[in-house]
Amino acid sequence: MPNKVLIYSRFPKAMMMRIGGQFELMDGGGKPPGEVFTAEQLSGIRAMITAGGTPLGGAVMDTMPSLRAIACYGTGYDGVDLTAAAQRGIMVGHSPAANAAAVADLAVTLMLAATRRLLPADNYVRSGDWASAKPSPLMRPQPGNPGRRVGVYGMGEIGRKIASRVAAFETEVAYFSRSRHAVPYLYVPSLEALAEWCSVLMIAVRAGADTHHAVDANILRKLGSDGYVVNISRGSVIDQDALVAALADGAIAGAGLDVYENEPHAPDRLTGFANVVMTPHVGGHTLESHAAMQNCVIANLEAFFAGKPMPHLVRGV
Amino acid sequence: MPNKVLIYSRFPKAMMMRIGGQFELMDGGGKPPGEVFTAEQLSGIRAMITAGGTPLGGAVMDTMPSLRAIACYGTGYDGVDLTAAAQRGIMVGHSPAANAAAVADLAVTLMLAATRRLLPADNYVRSGDWASAKPSPLMRPQPGNPGRRVGVYGMGEIGRKIASRVAAFETEVAYFSRSRHAVPYLYVPSLEALAEWCSVLMIAVRAGADTHHAVDANILRKLGSDGYVVNISRGSVIDQDALVAALADGAIAGAGLDVYENEPHAPDRLTGFANVVMTPHVGGHTLESHAAMQNCVIANLEAFFAGKPMPHLVRGV
Repeated sequence: MPNKVLIYSRFPKAMMMRIGGQFELMDGGGKPPGEVFTAEQLSGIRAMITAGGTPLGGAVMDTMPSLRAIACYGTGYDGVDLTAAAQRGIMVGHSPAANAAAVADLAVTLMLAATRRLLPADNYVRSGDWASAKPSPLMRPQPGNPGRRVGVYGMGEIGRKIASRVAAFETEVAYFSRSRHAVPYLYVPSLEALAEWCSVLMIAVRAGADTHHAVDANILRKLGSDGYVVNISRGSVIDQDALVAALADGAIAGAGLDVYENEPHAPDRLTGFANVVMTPHVGGHTLESHAAMQNCVIANLEAFFAGKPMPHLVRGV
Repeated sequence: MPNKVLIYSRFPKAMMMRIGGQFELMDGGGKPPGEVFTAEQLSGIRAMITAGGTPLGGAVMDTMPSLRAIACYGTGYDGVDLTAAAQRGIMVGHSPAANAAAVADLAVTLMLAATRRLLPADNYVRSGDWASAKPSPLMRPQPGNPGRRVGVYGMGEIGRKIASRVAAFETEVAYFSRSRHAVPYLYVPSLEALAEWCSVLMIAVRAGADTHHAVDANILRKLGSDGYVVNISRGSVIDQDALVAALADGAIAGAGLDVYENEPHAPDRLTGFANVVMTPHVGGHTLESHAAMQNCVIANLEAFFAGKPMPHLVRGV
């Protein structure tokens, strides 16, 4: 009989198909497990799957007294209260680097689309305005890539892949991260100095207390009126109200966003800007990276049920 | 007194500002010069500026009996009847490679946007469909870049810059061109074989009789139902009717287009597809590449008026 696994976050069914071939899935559909399952059902659950960004604290863990394993689908685990998990003897695994290429690709897609005004350009053709030679201030030539200064905030697997991709566009690349890395890019000792130096800021840091609202009004001001910010990390890293204000004031030139403070909600004040490109948190959303993330989830859960340590354990837990 | 120069194609005024500082511009606004200027005015014209794609035959040249120099703004010169110019002793110059980086950047932008469904993704966020969890078949995961086979058709300056950029996305790159080049990419001996091999075909060949409708129904069929075509070269290289049919039948997965058969008209049958990304022939449209193209035009015209050969002469003319 296959082992039971609770699905905690709301996932499309297609993503759980392969995993469901290995385990008996109890899908809570994104609701608190106590609302969907009986106390008896919950008492039999030893492992669960969650999306790293979904809040998961000790109170929820306590509704499943046998819970000993949490497998995060994806790289992030910022929603999981690691201390609470450790106190309850619950191991936490994730899918490190499985989606790094896909996320880095989307970061560069957002940068290119925002700086070349791709969405207004497509609309200019589709609406017939081009055919009728209607002038459009949005279609004025913009600065190009060669010589452009791109700043990468965070130099993990995703940051490295962003850097190597943008460097191919004849740009200059610098980065700020807690520590220097053995990478061929200029290290800048603070986020503020990086924002001052670059014209495109690519956010690739892990979410957490130390990066919460790290990109605030001051950083955006340093980026300047020809500057762009691209975020494929977590919405919490940007002060979203400050971003809206900076866009409204022309304090920055535009933005590319895959993540938001309160997903799946992108506020109306943000969706009104023509110089912002938005995607619905689909950075890791390619066939290959889903397969790789599913492999990590399956390997973590199989190891747990076999009484072994998870191969992709969150460090320090 | 500054030398007189006819502006033949329709150019935004901003693009001619710097050039107008060196010469006395007679702007025909895209109309036949004979409709705008008197025979006496035309007889004084020794040099003109045109966009390379604008048709310019012997009959128009004959309306300006003193014409001895044509400066193309941009890399292309496919609209200029080179034989007619040679017969009349008119030298033809262009702006080689001045816009190569900007055009290659847009090619990659179109490839990334088409393959990651960027436009439907932005619309999914902006419309509120994401917030209301409305399912969208367009948001299903797509194949990613690592391991993707990208075929580059044409290996001039733009083709090389496209290849070096896409290679940074962990793709495999191959190319077809009339001759092999000293480049680190697989050479494929025919366009048909390239289309068979790749899943994204990037068109970077010069327009001409030998490339007219080179990408036809057969090539698109070889590309296959998971294949994309990106064109930043000239609309004439693709059989546009065959492209519309291939998109309608699902014979290919999508397209990214900066150029069209009959610009500025993108046919309604093309603008209806959600899996096509369109831009209004803005490949070379960055501040730096306009400055570089203007430098070439000015250098070509100054040399001509000084009785010297143009520094950026079209080869073989």
